[in-house]
Amino acid sequence: MPAGGVSRAEIEEIIAVSFFRSVLGGEVAAYGDGQCELRAPIPAALRQFRGDVHGGIVGALADDACAWACASVAGKLVTASYTINFTGRASGAELVARGQVLKTGRRLVVGQSTVYSIEDGREAPVAVLQATLALVGDTAEAAPPRLASRPD
Amino acid sequence: MPAGGVSRAEIEEIIAVSFFRSVLGGEVAAYGDGQCELRAPIPAALRQFRGDVHGGIVGALADDACAWACASVAGKLVTASYTINFTGRASGAELVARGQVLKTGRRLVVGQSTVYSIEDGREAPVAVLQATLALVGDTAEAAPPRLASRPD
Amino acid sequence: MPAGGVSRAEIEEIIAVSFFRSVLGGEVAAYGDGQCELRAPIPAALRQFRGDVHGGIVGALADDACAWACASVAGKLVTASYTINFTGRASGAELVARGQVLKTGRRLVVGQSTVYSIEDGREAPVAVLQATLALVGDTAEAAPPRLASRPD
Amino acid sequence: MPAGGVSRAEIEEIIAVSFFRSVLGGEVAAYGDGQCELRAPIPAALRQFRGDVHGGIVGALADDACAWACASVAGKLVTASYTINFTGRASGAELVARGQVLKTGRRLVVGQSTVYSIEDGREAPVAVLQATLALVGDTAEAAPPRLASRPD
Repeated sequence: MPAGGVSRAEIEEIIAVSFFRSVLGGEVAAYGDGQCELRAPIPAALRQFRGDVHGGIVGALADDACAWACASVAGKLVTASYTINFTGRASGAELVARGQVLKTGRRLVVGQSTVYSIEDGREAPVAVLQATLALVGDTAEAAPPRLASRPD
Repeated sequence: MPAGGVSRAEIEEIIAVSFFRSVLGGEVAAYGDGQCELRAPIPAALRQFRGDVHGGIVGALADDACAWACASVAGKLVTASYTINFTGRASGAELVARGQVLKTGRRLVVGQSTVYSIEDGREAPVAVLQATLALVGDTAEAAPPRLASRPD
Repeated sequence: MPAGGVSRAEIEEIIAVSFFRSVLGGEVAAYGDGQCELRAPIPAALRQFRGDVHGGIVGALADDACAWACASVAGKLVTASYTINFTGRASGAELVARGQVLKTGRRLVVGQSTVYSIEDGREAPVAVLQATLALVGDTAEAAPPRLASRPD
Repeated sequence: MPAGGVSRAEIEEIIAVSFFRSVLGGEVAAYGDGQCELRAPIPAALRQFRGDVHGGIVGALADDACAWACASVAGKLVTASYTINFTGRASGAELVARGQVLKTGRRLVVGQSTVYSIEDGREAPVAVLQATLALVGDTAEAAPPRLASRPD
């Protein structure tokens, strides 16, 4: 792992005040070496009326898993853009998102993630995401670290 | 507007039990003729620790505005995939998302949306979204209408 | 393989009159079971002035590999949208693109592909692509099969 | 226009040795102030067997129009990723692509473009593209300018 990777302690600190924790009550199941696994129970309020999780929530989880996988080796970064394809219904009681870094450059990072719904104990695919992330330069960062979705 | 467009009353019924309403407390400011404008105050719990709204929430709003704009002329549909580019910080007290349909086909619909953050009374651009949506066939739909993000 | 998959003979017939063959001189190295591998030498005219292949050509190859992988199990289809992330320079004498189907539905198919540049006999990653494809219904297809990039 | 914008003369120099010129025989119809319009006759070899232009060619044109529109105000850059949605058949004798910059940052630029097919003298929409581009720093660029699709 490069010296610049964000440590697990740093990630947990960021997560403590995040949407992922406060609304979803999610946990980081695995983190490091360009990989990240997130698990989140799905509150009723986040479901559509047929019981599926809103695609935006799936997208938020997928974005987080991808961004944190990338941060684990590349350091502080922000999501510049992502594409999500929905591949199944998210109707289970829990979602699992697994991200991985694909490429790290001097300025940009590319990552992917996949989201699964836990249905009767089995994983059913829900979505795949592909993202472009921008490293946040040290000089630009007297401010505290952030991993939000915002470029520049 | 084609006969197949989803009416405003139907949209409001769907929204009444949606993430958009229950978590964001959002309102439909305009709807119809291939356009949709959504407005949502941003609860503190959805902000990252530097005060910006999580990109996944921005994505959820952008997805809804685009999907409902498309539904207003094309009928019942689901988002198959979307791409979002973040163009600014979402640090204001309210978000506005405006969607528009670009193309309607027999099976697929293409739409776009833009999200703005209200900063000191002015709109600052936050994100642009481009989406592929799939019409939901009548035969497939003895079940109630849905506008969730999921294909097939 | 489902009965609806496009056969290798059909694919070769389509390719015989395609951009992939006529301009790139490409070959189908593997095809079937939701996978497709394409190989193409890169003519000088398709390079930018620093010697890299134009990103649009990389995108065309990536799109073809993905679409044909999907067609091998799902049948006749068209690319509705794709996202490509560039992950390295395409400066080698040959490109290899590998596609795979991720999900098949009644109307839509999701696929991915990766493009590599052959540099000194080794594969260097160039791009990753994620696509939404639309199945082309039998009734809509008295016309000959096509696998172009166009929805509806 | 910022001091850093790529001049029309520089763009024409790049185009002179590009795929856009050598294969498509295209022309820059308008350039500057964050806008770019490209026009290209479509050689028979780039058509699929039903007469439509290959989606990869449409993507290449759309990418160029977007990238050059962005370069006109932001300076030297490369496309990091793009998403293209196909909205109609490209069956006319000429394609027109119009790009515009949406946002410029210190590291990243966001742009869009639309491609039209000239059908019986009228413009029919073919595709919309949304892209993330990365500025190429001066220190990194003792090498000549490039506008290829490749990050880092």
